[in-house]
Amino acid sequence: MSLRQESAAAFAWPEPAPRPVVPGAPSLTHSRCDWTREITIVDEYGEHRQLHIPCERPLTIFVDKRELVTLMTLGARPELLVLGYLRNQHLIARADEVESITVDWDVAAAAVRTRGGVPDLETRTSRRVVTTGCGQGTVFGDAMEQVGSLRLPDAQAARIRQGTLQRMLETIRQHDSIHRRAGSVHGCALFQGSELLMFVEDVGRHNAIDTITGWMALHGVEGADKALYTTGRLTSEMVMKAATIGVPIVVSRNGVTAMGYDLASRLGMALFGRAANRHFLCYTGAERFDSEPEVKPATVRVVSG
Amino acid sequence: MSLRQESAAAFAWPEPAPRPVVPGAPSLTHSRCDWTREITIVDEYGEHRQLHIPCERPLTIFVDKRELVTLMTLGARPELLVLGYLRNQHLIARADEVESITVDWDVAAAAVRTRGGVPDLETRTSRRVVTTGCGQGTVFGDAMEQVGSLRLPDAQAARIRQGTLQRMLETIRQHDSIHRRAGSVHGCALFQGSELLMFVEDVGRHNAIDTITGWMALHGVEGADKALYTTGRLTSEMVMKAATIGVPIVVSRNGVTAMGYDLASRLGMALFGRAANRHFLCYTGAERFDSEPEVKPATVRVVSG
Repeated sequence: MSLRQESAAAFAWPEPAPRPVVPGAPSLTHSRCDWTREITIVDEYGEHRQLHIPCERPLTIFVDKRELVTLMTLGARPELLVLGYLRNQHLIARADEVESITVDWDVAAAAVRTRGGVPDLETRTSRRVVTTGCGQGTVFGDAMEQVGSLRLPDAQAARIRQGTLQRMLETIRQHDSIHRRAGSVHGCALFQGSELLMFVEDVGRHNAIDTITGWMALHGVEGADKALYTTGRLTSEMVMKAATIGVPIVVSRNGVTAMGYDLASRLGMALFGRAANRHFLCYTGAERFDSEPEVKPATVRVVSG
Repeated sequence: MSLRQESAAAFAWPEPAPRPVVPGAPSLTHSRCDWTREITIVDEYGEHRQLHIPCERPLTIFVDKRELVTLMTLGARPELLVLGYLRNQHLIARADEVESITVDWDVAAAAVRTRGGVPDLETRTSRRVVTTGCGQGTVFGDAMEQVGSLRLPDAQAARIRQGTLQRMLETIRQHDSIHRRAGSVHGCALFQGSELLMFVEDVGRHNAIDTITGWMALHGVEGADKALYTTGRLTSEMVMKAATIGVPIVVSRNGVTAMGYDLASRLGMALFGRAANRHFLCYTGAERFDSEPEVKPATVRVVSG
């Protein structure tokens, strides 16, 4: 990992192309905070040097003045994170249910005002499932039941070619990022074909996918013809979140768990893992995949004599 | 990553050396379940092959018949995980407060019976902080306040030499693991000097450190003269858990966040990151560190002429 220290402090991802918001979209603050901090470290050579590390900030979410949860986040896109969190926890279905999201870093709080209240908020948030979530780790209990009702487009309608997958990976590889400068963050990106629509990073992969969820909800972007890239592992919770936003193809730099695999298989979702450079494994959903096999390098054989 | 497929299904870590348990220790079941599953994948060459992936199982914890939380876990050491979880969430202080932990995978539940009840269980578990936890992601609200009262041994009493650190890394490198066979799991290990005392893996790094916590509590193993190795990032929650079990030196294969750094600095904990082979960065706590600098390889200079 090469670290470009000199500009890490001022670093910000390129903004996605501007888009209209859905009718009735919530008004959002445009809060700002530092994403990285510089510290002095000593290495195995006994040398001292400066290094940028990512921030990790508590953000307490209040819904209609009721405290809901505190998320630990990088803090780059908190308004979208909050909107997407509510969506992925199935506390709202659409962005127009929210009137406003006001983030104030001075008090580390996000105040959400809804238009019609969240029905049974207390009951629905009483059961906690703590998952492997790198990013959050709670899925309120009934979300697991809801995934059974999710539907993805069929395999003829939503497919991916191997060449497209490789262009996605190349785009990610070249994309500037906090990870490249400061490490320790997860990244998530939404693609349409090989076109990158939205890229986001957070200290937790669940925050990253929730932030993308919030952006999709705000702009009315549907998931059926999209693919998701994540640096996080394909656990049950990640698969559920992708299904919740309707994305049928998920590509991870990392691996999969048996439950992530089972859920994806049940949903007909295509999962690709260990994806980097031109390498990947298709774990399930190969019916969505148009393989364009690489030529395997010839094995070098040492011949004696 | 080399995968030894043929024996992944039957794989189990070497058991730690047997030790006595503390007086009044809880009785524990010895539940068993599969840790990995075999699936068929297709790769970039269009080749189909078998692969082992780690399991991810829900485990609902009931404390004195009251449902507390559901953890998603690999399932390798659930009794120790539950004991350690309760300890790291500050719901118990010692193992002898627990009478029994009964895990039944048929109903994916762990029933905990305490000797004297958990005071104010409902109130104390009402505030949820959802962290970046790869493994869990909740720290019940008052745990953050409690860390301020934690004390670690001073820098003269608990130190680490660079040579010891490198032997720790070499031990980990050679240690057989699910990660080596199936990927997608985090590992955590407790060391005394360069001696490995306990090694555990889970789909989440928080489960792994909680399992070690449970083992320490069960056997009355103190943290002051130990060091912890983790594959997970050094976030605020990881630092807090290490402080809770009294371990003043933490080594990670991964990086650190600003909040993890701040907490560790405040606590006087030594944090090493990006640790692999002979490389590492000491982020903070260098006052505990006896540097034995490597010789930096000479830079190869191309001289023209």
